[in-house]
Amino acid sequence: MTELRVLPVEGLPEIAEGDDLGALIAEHAQLEAGDVVVVSQKVVSKAEGRVVRLADVEASERARALAGDHDPRQLEVILSEATRIVRTRAPLVIAETRHGFVCASAGVDASNAPGPDTLVLLPADPDASAEAIRLTLRERTGKNVGVIVSDSFGRPWRNGIVDVAIGVAGLRPLEDWRGRRDRNGYELRATVVAVADEIAAAAELVRAKTAGVPVAIVRGLDVSGEGSGRELLMPPERDMFR
Amino acid sequence: MTELRVLPVEGLPEIAEGDDLGALIAEHAQLEAGDVVVVSQKVVSKAEGRVVRLADVEASERARALAGDHDPRQLEVILSEATRIVRTRAPLVIAETRHGFVCASAGVDASNAPGPDTLVLLPADPDASAEAIRLTLRERTGKNVGVIVSDSFGRPWRNGIVDVAIGVAGLRPLEDWRGRRDRNGYELRATVVAVADEIAAAAELVRAKTAGVPVAIVRGLDVSGEGSGRELLMPPERDMFR
Repeated sequence: MTELRVLPVEGLPEIAEGDDLGALIAEHAQLEAGDVVVVSQKVVSKAEGRVVRLADVEASERARALAGDHDPRQLEVILSEATRIVRTRAPLVIAETRHGFVCASAGVDASNAPGPDTLVLLPADPDASAEAIRLTLRERTGKNVGVIVSDSFGRPWRNGIVDVAIGVAGLRPLEDWRGRRDRNGYELRATVVAVADEIAAAAELVRAKTAGVPVAIVRGLDVSGEGSGRELLMPPERDMFR
Repeated sequence: MTELRVLPVEGLPEIAEGDDLGALIAEHAQLEAGDVVVVSQKVVSKAEGRVVRLADVEASERARALAGDHDPRQLEVILSEATRIVRTRAPLVIAETRHGFVCASAGVDASNAPGPDTLVLLPADPDASAEAIRLTLRERTGKNVGVIVSDSFGRPWRNGIVDVAIGVAGLRPLEDWRGRRDRNGYELRATVVAVADEIAAAAELVRAKTAGVPVAIVRGLDVSGEGSGRELLMPPERDMFR
């Protein structure tokens, strides 16, 4: 029977700058070929040193205006990560990042940061982060796996956050069903499924359950191929919400 | 070890109006207490007779204007399901349904319909649909399970569709982490996780793999409690994208 399993990778140490995440995962996980390894953005960013100390930040006029009664230095960091402000309601800022993601605080996050006065930024190139982990895993375990770097995003119109894929390596993030036909021969139009986002969401379920576990494995999809997280970004000319 | 399993429910017949979905699922699935049974909206709607024949539809002026070179009767049905048009780009309509969902075509779908000239509408009350299935499953199997009615929604800014929960029974759709603290004692603010949407997404992965399977089980979350799909709707006063 076809089934999927979602397994937490337990026993990983607290991740710090310079850590080789791929090597640590290889050490703590029993991988199988075709697995997808889903890694929380937070530990990727920490390993890559994408951390800012608030003490090193000076807030601009604009950051002060947006901050409301919150720390304007935090807003300054958010603005420095953003290429476009989509919505603001102090102190909340929805912004487009330089990667093209539209998310709260341009992906800048204070939870799970290395210290109380630090902020964690998104990886500079999440696809490259995923690919580096994938190559290390292949080298250390001999297995070809897919890797997703995931982050929690809010959504317009719906409550709560869900994990999505911001970096992808070793799998196709979109499954294109166009041209396939349903049981009645009706063409399944407009059904390109964002499988990488669904994999990230499935992994988050097990990570949430085992609080503090930053890596999970989704087994049974037997992934292969190439792809990138950029494919999940709606091109501006097709974006009805730009 | 904590792990999740996602299992397709195989062997279900083609669903038609009047079918007892709960009874059919009970017959084809080996349920365990705490499972989540995820049922595709399409089969729920078909069982409930939420189907419109295009031959019975007369297109209004407004439907003709929005249809472009597509069938204006399809637009007429979409308009009749919508309480608010959010965006249009002929023939694409993003609309709010009377339930409060914002989605393409107000949830009206032609794929997997009972025939080539029919359209499937969303269930009139997806929470009630989920609850009815939950009660039948408890009665037939003696197991307390959660039930999610799921549908595939697009998202602003991102390519591809993902499944989300439109009806919920027997579980809490939102996991509220506010007030919990991370390893550094930093409060995990703004982290209400839409677990029901993540469960729907995980189920879709296995349904997509086994094409045509409308029901899947997510096992290992050990759900209980009460909840509704309405909790997943952002209240207008908090909605920055209204």
